[in-house]
Amino acid sequence: MPGTYPTPFCNQALLTDLYQLTMLQGYFLQEMEETAVFEFFVRKLPSRRRFLVAAGLAQALDYLETLHFTPAELEWLSASGRFHQDFIDYLAGFRFTGDVDAMPEGTIFFPDEPILRVTAPLPQAQLVESRLINILHHQTLIASKAARVVLAAPGRLLVDFGMRRAHGGEAALFAARASYLAGFAGTATTLAAPLFGIPVFGTMAHSFVQSHDDEILAFEHFARAQPGNVVLLIDTYDTERGARRVVSLAPRLKAQGISIKAVRLDSGDLAEHARRVREILDDGGLHSVQIFVSGNLDEYRIHELLAAGAPIDGFGVGTVLDTSADVPYLDCAYKLQEYAGRPRRKRSEGKATWPGRKQVYRFYSGSGRMEKDILTLAELPSPGGEALLQPVMRGGRRCQALPDLEAGRRHLAAGMDRLPEPLRSLEEGDGIPVEVAPALQALAQELDRRNH
Amino acid sequence: MPGTYPTPFCNQALLTDLYQLTMLQGYFLQEMEETAVFEFFVRKLPSRRRFLVAAGLAQALDYLETLHFTPAELEWLSASGRFHQDFIDYLAGFRFTGDVDAMPEGTIFFPDEPILRVTAPLPQAQLVESRLINILHHQTLIASKAARVVLAAPGRLLVDFGMRRAHGGEAALFAARASYLAGFAGTATTLAAPLFGIPVFGTMAHSFVQSHDDEILAFEHFARAQPGNVVLLIDTYDTERGARRVVSLAPRLKAQGISIKAVRLDSGDLAEHARRVREILDDGGLHSVQIFVSGNLDEYRIHELLAAGAPIDGFGVGTVLDTSADVPYLDCAYKLQEYAGRPRRKRSEGKATWPGRKQVYRFYSGSGRMEKDILTLAELPSPGGEALLQPVMRGGRRCQALPDLEAGRRHLAAGMDRLPEPLRSLEEGDGIPVEVAPALQALAQELDRRNH
Repeated sequence: MPGTYPTPFCNQALLTDLYQLTMLQGYFLQEMEETAVFEFFVRKLPSRRRFLVAAGLAQALDYLETLHFTPAELEWLSASGRFHQDFIDYLAGFRFTGDVDAMPEGTIFFPDEPILRVTAPLPQAQLVESRLINILHHQTLIASKAARVVLAAPGRLLVDFGMRRAHGGEAALFAARASYLAGFAGTATTLAAPLFGIPVFGTMAHSFVQSHDDEILAFEHFARAQPGNVVLLIDTYDTERGARRVVSLAPRLKAQGISIKAVRLDSGDLAEHARRVREILDDGGLHSVQIFVSGNLDEYRIHELLAAGAPIDGFGVGTVLDTSADVPYLDCAYKLQEYAGRPRRKRSEGKATWPGRKQVYRFYSGSGRMEKDILTLAELPSPGGEALLQPVMRGGRRCQALPDLEAGRRHLAAGMDRLPEPLRSLEEGDGIPVEVAPALQALAQELDRRNH
Repeated sequence: MPGTYPTPFCNQALLTDLYQLTMLQGYFLQEMEETAVFEFFVRKLPSRRRFLVAAGLAQALDYLETLHFTPAELEWLSASGRFHQDFIDYLAGFRFTGDVDAMPEGTIFFPDEPILRVTAPLPQAQLVESRLINILHHQTLIASKAARVVLAAPGRLLVDFGMRRAHGGEAALFAARASYLAGFAGTATTLAAPLFGIPVFGTMAHSFVQSHDDEILAFEHFARAQPGNVVLLIDTYDTERGARRVVSLAPRLKAQGISIKAVRLDSGDLAEHARRVREILDDGGLHSVQIFVSGNLDEYRIHELLAAGAPIDGFGVGTVLDTSADVPYLDCAYKLQEYAGRPRRKRSEGKATWPGRKQVYRFYSGSGRMEKDILTLAELPSPGGEALLQPVMRGGRRCQALPDLEAGRRHLAAGMDRLPEPLRSLEEGDGIPVEVAPALQALAQELDRRNH
């Protein structure tokens, strides 16, 4: 309906699969309100990911804290004819009052490990499934991709350029956040700055150059408009001629007190262009002008450019990052593990889950690198190691003093330092071993034997 | 910043790349406000797409009509220290007042063809670049994928199941809309119904079965809660046993006036299970109970299942559709083609564009199938054929009586009927030829010769 597109995220109660609501009506009619435990985890490591990065928890908790049905939503549900009026009255008072335990954002994790556990009355834990997965999956996907880019570009400036080809507006914002968590310096997506406190970067586009009749005039106008941040895009017509024009312009700008910070290349053979442009700039005395490149970059291409010794100081990484193009989704799930005090297990072929409330313990080698994880039942005594899931919400309210985005960024940087060396490479291979504790295996077998 | 995540889409002025704002300040200082023409197009057809489907126009026009800076946004821009106060004052009055010409939603198109043209004062046409691409790219991506699924499943019920693994909330909503445009029957994403008027479908999840101690009791409770829409998920423990339980339950439900509409399979060998389940249901007299399947389906898998004669009545298609997993992005661009009455051309290596304002004319064979398109300058006399771009906005306001989503759906269905037969297959290959008119080629050559 053209002209009536409102603002979908002012309230998110209907941002869920319809079956959550139809199941809720089933639970309501049967008065099934006992405590349920659901866990979110990833089933398999994609072949091009050797570790995953937990992300999106802050937005997940925001969602749970604010979840409620507005009068307009209740009216729509009523008009749909699918629901009993007493169920709709019940939804009017619906809030999330449960507990959440989770790995802090920036925690490195592996398959079968829950990164978030919801403990709440069954209808509450059920309704939130679709949106919780939607938030956690996407940010985890992007943070895991971005961490690889960070590993490929040690010491270089990395900026998220992906907004335009991200899958919608929220994807762009979440990608800016997740890549910053992973170690990017910032993003080009302006709104991410006021929303998340992320540094924002900007250069210029080809259209700015094209709209001038003269490239050098375009450079000069841009420099005057942004004297503190002069990054000139030099490949609109001919990259090396562009670099020579920068050299010729520099003294005139200097006389006005403006110095050029960097040039950007966005097309052609970037390694070769960077080398020639570096020469031209150096020959012109512009040693301090940096070279920034962009254009369908990913971790492999960046690794290749740096391995070839290309004199590149920074990278704008866009589409391939924001869509996680080589792995555009993770095989993740949010599954019921316990209801009314009894562990539950789904046995569908190829999709069986580990039952019960679980905890993950991490063990390190003598040199401080990650060695293995143990997946076990949370109620059992610790087998040693570092417990990865922590309380983050109690009774529908955030716990005090949760780590913020900056803390998550430091947490991940520390975690990446503790990855075994092969996991820091871009080569395909396994993660660290995840051992399933004997008690958990025994519980799964017992549930399989029991009826059904 | 936990706890402060607001609702990003109540206003979208800052949902843009920072460089748009820095360039705007450049234009402002130079008083460059003459008319610019930008066009959005796709550069190349991905190898697994033989045609593309224009989508997202309604949301693009909503964005342009409502674009403005709120006091909070202006304050943030001011506090950022990057902008002159007189520029910020100018932004306070900023509105989009330009013209838009576009292919109606649901139009089939090919590389180099503009699907949207913006004609507006340069700063306006520039600022909107990032978000316009973000909207048009994503919906076009998903509609183009969904159209292939529709071609692979003639006469079957198709439902979008992808919300959870879509890239954020807006991606889920846009995917629901774009797949409906392409011919899907509807979506599981509830909010898409009130937002876009799309039919919404829901079944049940494994957790509903698991939260009951007894599978058959779960089926009965669900049926009583949704007597008008009984679709039972039968693979939680053992698919065929689940089917037999449905048969045993049917008479008891019938006595209560409830009939079972369908069963859903979500794991294992779907063709084999569907066959056995059909037998079990038929043997139990449940000939009218349909079989609905889901689980990592795409157009290839659906084609395979139907080619193998699997008795499947409908498909839930999720992750692979909502992420367009085999082609997670299109090589698209929004480029300046004219400024101040003069055509412009970007010549960057591998990224050159066709200059000037363009129109696309489509030609059909005697049998009514698409034969070729001609890309030419809009101001030239028509070479014949059907002109694909039409006026949709004048002076910042939508033109009257634009086609709605239902009309777009019919338009695309008609277009798919007119595709040459090879383009309706899943095999890789080319689209129809796009001829570049001699006058346009001559203009490009002339611009290349001219200065720069």
